Amino acid sequence: MTDTFENHSQETLEAHLVQVQTLLAKMRLVEELVHRQGGPRQTLVENLVHKQHLAELHRQIEILHPADIAYILEALPLQERRLVWEMVGAENDGEILLEVSDSVRESLIQTMDKAELLAAAESLDTDEIADIAADLPQDVIQELLTSLDVQKRARLQSALSFPEDSVGALMDYEMVTIRVDVTLEVALRYLRRLGELPDQLDKLFVVDHDKLIGVLPLKRLLTTDPEASVAAVMVEDFVKFHPEDEAHEAAQAFERYDLVMAPVVDAQGRLIGRLTVDAVVDYIRESADSDMLSMAGLKEEEDLFSTVWNAAKNRWMWLAINLCTAFVASRVIGAFEGSIEKLAALAALMPIIAGIGGNSGNQTITLIIRGLALGHITPANAKRLVLKELGVAILNGLVWGSVVGVFAWLLYDNPALGGVMALAMLLNLLVAALAGIFIPMTLERVKRDPAIGSSVLLTFVTDSMGFFIFLGLATLLLL
Amino acid sequence: MTDTFENHSQETLEAHLVQVQTLLAKMRLVEELVHRQGGPRQTLVENLVHKQHLAELHRQIEILHPADIAYILEALPLQERRLVWEMVGAENDGEILLEVSDSVRESLIQTMDKAELLAAAESLDTDEIADIAADLPQDVIQELLTSLDVQKRARLQSALSFPEDSVGALMDYEMVTIRVDVTLEVALRYLRRLGELPDQLDKLFVVDHDKLIGVLPLKRLLTTDPEASVAAVMVEDFVKFHPEDEAHEAAQAFERYDLVMAPVVDAQGRLIGRLTVDAVVDYIRESADSDMLSMAGLKEEEDLFSTVWNAAKNRWMWLAINLCTAFVASRVIGAFEGSIEKLAALAALMPIIAGIGGNSGNQTITLIIRGLALGHITPANAKRLVLKELGVAILNGLVWGSVVGVFAWLLYDNPALGGVMALAMLLNLLVAALAGIFIPMTLERVKRDPAIGSSVLLTFVTDSMGFFIFLGLATLLLL
Repeated sequence: MTDTFENHSQETLEAHLVQVQTLLAKMRLVEELVHRQGGPRQTLVENLVHKQHLAELHRQIEILHPADIAYILEALPLQERRLVWEMVGAENDGEILLEVSDSVRESLIQTMDKAELLAAAESLDTDEIADIAADLPQDVIQELLTSLDVQKRARLQSALSFPEDSVGALMDYEMVTIRVDVTLEVALRYLRRLGELPDQLDKLFVVDHDKLIGVLPLKRLLTTDPEASVAAVMVEDFVKFHPEDEAHEAAQAFERYDLVMAPVVDAQGRLIGRLTVDAVVDYIRESADSDMLSMAGLKEEEDLFSTVWNAAKNRWMWLAINLCTAFVASRVIGAFEGSIEKLAALAALMPIIAGIGGNSGNQTITLIIRGLALGHITPANAKRLVLKELGVAILNGLVWGSVVGVFAWLLYDNPALGGVMALAMLLNLLVAALAGIFIPMTLERVKRDPAIGSSVLLTFVTDSMGFFIFLGLATLLLL
Repeated sequence: MTDTFENHSQETLEAHLVQVQTLLAKMRLVEELVHRQGGPRQTLVENLVHKQHLAELHRQIEILHPADIAYILEALPLQERRLVWEMVGAENDGEILLEVSDSVRESLIQTMDKAELLAAAESLDTDEIADIAADLPQDVIQELLTSLDVQKRARLQSALSFPEDSVGALMDYEMVTIRVDVTLEVALRYLRRLGELPDQLDKLFVVDHDKLIGVLPLKRLLTTDPEASVAAVMVEDFVKFHPEDEAHEAAQAFERYDLVMAPVVDAQGRLIGRLTVDAVVDYIRESADSDMLSMAGLKEEEDLFSTVWNAAKNRWMWLAINLCTAFVASRVIGAFEGSIEKLAALAALMPIIAGIGGNSGNQTITLIIRGLALGHITPANAKRLVLKELGVAILNGLVWGSVVGVFAWLLYDNPALGGVMALAMLLNLLVAALAGIFIPMTLERVKRDPAIGSSVLLTFVTDSMGFFIFLGLATLLLL
């Protein structure tokens, strides 16, 4: 791939995007001028300037790597995205659909008819078809299945059957196998006969009948005497995966052992595919992104230029949940309205207690989520973690509690109010530390992703308890 | 590396950690028993059971890959971490120091004397020494510099001079170069003479004198007739980097073009190093982690088992900033204490307006930060983004504003209060949308990382403005 397209640094790529945008803006201008003169759409299409612009746009697009066209499509609003998409040569359609994000892929597929979709899908490998299958209409998939040969159909069906975050969903089938009972010389001749090798291939898979019994790193193949036998040179202790393994554990193994590719085998040790580092890199990036998006309460990846309606739908669930917790916190305050009528300062001070509790608890939660993801937290060390976090909460409670206490005292000239403020801060920080540990650990134990719901639950606890502790103490001690 | 150690899946690794922890717990028990019997420390060391435990621990550690020992060290509290660390063979010290996180590395280095540190560092490549240099005492680095040969010293000094997030800081020097004027046959013989090739090597660098003029992918070397010349087979249009390029842009190029390794050249086109996918994977993971940590206001990566004091210091800055913004929001409320005394319901309802504004703004900010990081946002499309986000805010404002309005009306039997609530919600969502776009874009424009300060600034705006809009409208319209 890298030898047939121009390669671009991010900087030149962004410059390219700006060029395309400028051209599109010019085209919009021409279109508006034609419209204003009252001519029919026909006139626009016949317009010479318009034609020149189209040709220029075409020139700019066709030299780009599919991944770079994908980048440009992501950054364009819907209408212009469609215009550029129509200009892409059909032979690149499949590659580009693979590279864009889910939401942009949806917007592109909407503009394609069945024949175009079939052609695009047929230009891809079976594992790649499986990656975009979720967005393809059911009848296109059916037709694809019937058009593939037996081996490919079986592969596509099995690729479609793996859960999204499994090794099976990330693997591909482009591996090179050699028999264990030959010499390196034979292996070298075999490779030369193949004529072309897959990307990201850093080892051959050594098989005995259909069992995978070793791997032959290319660097060993290249540096060892060709007379040697594969059996003598191959590595027998190698990292392998099963298709049902979790993708994030495989990604950790790739990071730990600096892998470029690894075989995927079934329960009987038969070779069924391979996992490559480029698939792992995409997976790592996508899961980091999706963690970030879901922590902010976005249901799924959102096209920057999606319609208002789609964007709103994507965000409603989270806002609705937060509204419910806010209602509950509001009722906690409501229970103390009598106290607030007597001392309105309480209303002004209470958000400080709740807010700092939330911030502090979020720090704890972030460390715990990370520790859980890396497998650093076990029953044996959980107790120490709790003690440490409570220690930090007490220290912070004494320091920041004093600060806010003095602030309240000076502002309202009321030392007792300052004392209540300080005590409430200390208590709410302790609540925040405990919630920050137990919420993600409980979610993990019940097999939920702790990165997703933890933060909203924590804020719920620190808000409600913060209001309750502060207003409760004030009612008891001050009024 | 993968051929000399047992490789472990995450699952077996976690089981291994539990074994080590169990053993350490047994040792603690023995220690306590000896102590309770009043024996001196001597007794413990002579204790047979203790010796057996130590031997068992040693056995469990020595079969592990350095990256796996690093994992176990991360998951152990300080005292036990030191015990295990002392057991690690000195030949693995360097590798492990490289693998652990910064904070854990600090805790390990504290236990080592100068001779041990020197030995550990000397087992590493120069680019690897540079990676841990920040944590080494100055005198160790000086001694290292004098002990290295001229080429290595120059490399270490230049590696130390690159900024942390540059390609120069990630690159290594393990490349294989061949001359352009030879045949593949000669290249193959040369590789065989080398006897060993670096990891992650998928291409040779083709040089003409000291200029890099092409790359020869191993897969071409393996599949082409050995009689062919390097010049005829090499690829001349390849991705290359400069040491001062930003690491995150290089990482994006690795993702886009599915690279395994790429050359690093100076301004004159001379080869100076290479960037490999394993360094890129580590970089991607670390930056995702550090984004997540800094969004939650942790100054730096924190050892799960750091001391309370270190942990508190790591978190203070953020809490102090949040306290300041909370004080300001509190004064906004303070300005309306008269209104709150008359209608305490305002105090109970105001956190809903501020809270949902914050949630909604955070959704916008997350999309914008992501769009900026991916280079999808340009001046040409910013206007459309603003219109879309305002559209979403109006839609959400009408929907959720009505919900909270009806809630307030029914709860307090006061339709006017409901109307104020609905209007305030709509206005604060508009404020949140604008703040959610302009805060990260402004930070980006002034060359600050938008992922770091955006969220606290946003909450400041949505809290203060939320309180001001709601209490202000209520004062104007209700009282």
